Amino acid sequence: MSVPVAAPLATPVLTLLTDYGLDDGFAGVCHGVIAGICPAARVIDVSHRIPRQDVLAGAVVLAAAIAYLPRGVHIAVVDPGVGSERRALAVQTADGRMFVGPDNGLLWPAMQACGGATKAVEVSESPLRLASVSATFHGRDIFAPVAAHLAAGVELRAAGRPLDPGALVTLELPRARLENGVLLARVMHVDTFGNVALGATERDLECLGAALGQRLELAPEPHVGGAGQANAAVFTARCVRSFADARGDELVVYLDCNGAVAIAINGASAAGRLVIASGDLVRISSL
Amino acid sequence: MSVPVAAPLATPVLTLLTDYGLDDGFAGVCHGVIAGICPAARVIDVSHRIPRQDVLAGAVVLAAAIAYLPRGVHIAVVDPGVGSERRALAVQTADGRMFVGPDNGLLWPAMQACGGATKAVEVSESPLRLASVSATFHGRDIFAPVAAHLAAGVELRAAGRPLDPGALVTLELPRARLENGVLLARVMHVDTFGNVALGATERDLECLGAALGQRLELAPEPHVGGAGQANAAVFTARCVRSFADARGDELVVYLDCNGAVAIAINGASAAGRLVIASGDLVRISSL
Amino acid sequence: MSVPVAAPLATPVLTLLTDYGLDDGFAGVCHGVIAGICPAARVIDVSHRIPRQDVLAGAVVLAAAIAYLPRGVHIAVVDPGVGSERRALAVQTADGRMFVGPDNGLLWPAMQACGGATKAVEVSESPLRLASVSATFHGRDIFAPVAAHLAAGVELRAAGRPLDPGALVTLELPRARLENGVLLARVMHVDTFGNVALGATERDLECLGAALGQRLELAPEPHVGGAGQANAAVFTARCVRSFADARGDELVVYLDCNGAVAIAINGASAAGRLVIASGDLVRISSL
Repeated sequence: MSVPVAAPLATPVLTLLTDYGLDDGFAGVCHGVIAGICPAARVIDVSHRIPRQDVLAGAVVLAAAIAYLPRGVHIAVVDPGVGSERRALAVQTADGRMFVGPDNGLLWPAMQACGGATKAVEVSESPLRLASVSATFHGRDIFAPVAAHLAAGVELRAAGRPLDPGALVTLELPRARLENGVLLARVMHVDTFGNVALGATERDLECLGAALGQRLELAPEPHVGGAGQANAAVFTARCVRSFADARGDELVVYLDCNGAVAIAINGASAAGRLVIASGDLVRISSL
Repeated sequence: MSVPVAAPLATPVLTLLTDYGLDDGFAGVCHGVIAGICPAARVIDVSHRIPRQDVLAGAVVLAAAIAYLPRGVHIAVVDPGVGSERRALAVQTADGRMFVGPDNGLLWPAMQACGGATKAVEVSESPLRLASVSATFHGRDIFAPVAAHLAAGVELRAAGRPLDPGALVTLELPRARLENGVLLARVMHVDTFGNVALGATERDLECLGAALGQRLELAPEPHVGGAGQANAAVFTARCVRSFADARGDELVVYLDCNGAVAIAINGASAAGRLVIASGDLVRISSL
Repeated sequence: MSVPVAAPLATPVLTLLTDYGLDDGFAGVCHGVIAGICPAARVIDVSHRIPRQDVLAGAVVLAAAIAYLPRGVHIAVVDPGVGSERRALAVQTADGRMFVGPDNGLLWPAMQACGGATKAVEVSESPLRLASVSATFHGRDIFAPVAAHLAAGVELRAAGRPLDPGALVTLELPRARLENGVLLARVMHVDTFGNVALGATERDLECLGAALGQRLELAPEPHVGGAGQANAAVFTARCVRSFADARGDELVVYLDCNGAVAIAINGASAAGRLVIASGDLVRISSL
């Protein structure tokens, strides 16, 4: 991984990614807890608007962001299992970052991009958590205070019970495969603009023989039971360098800002046009 | 009140809660004014997405957050009366915090949680406001600059005309009552997820004899003229420790992260299912 | 321009205005890049929810905000031409501020309010950009790192290739004109609340002879092809000091917090009632 920001920082950095939304003060309260424990920290909101309980979406956004975040303590909370027996983690990765959040795969792709977990502790009953822990708001009561203490210099081993860093819940992002000249790729993420990022890379496009200007056929195959179930339409798209190269409202295929193969329409929603969502399969072939 | 963060802070802290939204730069401009006056301050956004002009919702969110925010100057602006004769306040509470905002009850429950107002001044014509004051954006022109000067160390009495701290507009949050074995509780807040917080506590549930696993009947009685007016449905819910204990799409009743009795569906909107909104009455009885 | 915040700041200030939204981590990643390069900077989010690719809306919000932002480096990215041949700018204005963003007019009205551009460089191939530049995310790869280096003290001339500061793309905000006793004003901005800001000032209202209490006729003339095309309705409004002076759901005309003539309904959307949007013409006459 090429980390654009390499210098050690005098100011401790914490980052936050959650599905709490911005309406109810949940994210603000986490900031409050952090500021109370580590007043010197700089806190960066990666996003608080991950779709509710969508662990994959959170993992994708965090993995895409991590190379651009200063080395620090990275909190992520998309936690459908809060209040159940799922483990709560604080982890150190090979590059010296720390990650704090539920053990449900959310942190996994970002940690892999940082060299993988080298140390891990279970923090559900951490001595660093707040005195009173609610059943449903572990972001405030466990993850934020544990992370803030780590940012303030507390050692990881003081944050909880040791865990085998090789025994964490994993989450592999979807990867495309080529089958009889057709690229089968899953939708990894749909962004605010309706741009569709696929679990496919430049190399996959090359295997397909798709150069700039090449026309491609896109055949989405929605999940059974999904909104687009009846949809059997096939679409034509053009390989371009960026969505700014699209003409009118044509579909274009390009490498997005994270290096993923993406489908877009300039000024409109490609996900809407194709009636596809996260997890759906798209068959791509050259025309 | 148990304040989780107690140490005195070297860095002045300001917090912001408004209904300005995040689209138009209104919140950003308040940050700009604060940074110009008190560059050393750490500013925490509690929420800028309180429903427009909903003073009760703002009061509930602020009161729930305050124990988790470092001691500082707390600005809140949900202000349907801006431009009218309503008073503009800067208040000190018994625990040493300061609150700045309109005198319409918005600050009241949070100030009560902080020991109540001990000093108050009227700041509509404060010498600390901006040189030019608009009729409609007192957050920028009065509240932010007054609060920033207070955070920078200006004394409260220098911020405006003295007021009797016992004569502020009050706002009592709804509290449940038991009547013939039925708990009558009002909806205090509906959060982003559609979870419904009631004006009721653990003690109210105990009075009802509701232990974990107990089945309850929920009979919402919407406001006359409300969207759910025709709704006379009755629902069954189960007492659980957290919404993670819900099975399938059942309704559950639990204590939320602020200690309020709450109704939820794991992964869906309980407010939508029950067709209820803030202020509505719910009758709860044991089955 | 009366700048309310004048003292030189020890802490470098950066501000961000984009149409990236808050869902996908795009804004958070820009914060990360800035924090890595200039850890001492205070970063203020003006807004990340400018309507997608709406350069005029972004320009209006930035121009309204700038007088309230501390002197610093102001990044703005609403950039429908990203990936095309449009220039990327870093500019110094007469008052000592710096602006960084695409050369599409977005920065223009704010720079004019700061005395106009005095120095400019083209930064598309800046030595200060990230090592790897994507085709579609110049906020992260060019604008944020260039701005952060400028905030950290790098000289403007080191940021790119010199440009004639008089040859930047301009964007003049709409200005009203009086024609046969009728004021013709264009909608400059519709805010979150549906309040409609017009390209008209107090002086325009005076020319119309409109004092407080005066009744006005509002005749919107939507763009051809616009949503309100069939609308030929005429509305009556009353001149007031602030929307708090509105009675019931009447339309009122007042000077908004930025000194623009605005149309509002207290507690509802005037833009919805009048069926008008940014760019539409409104004919205003005295009754």
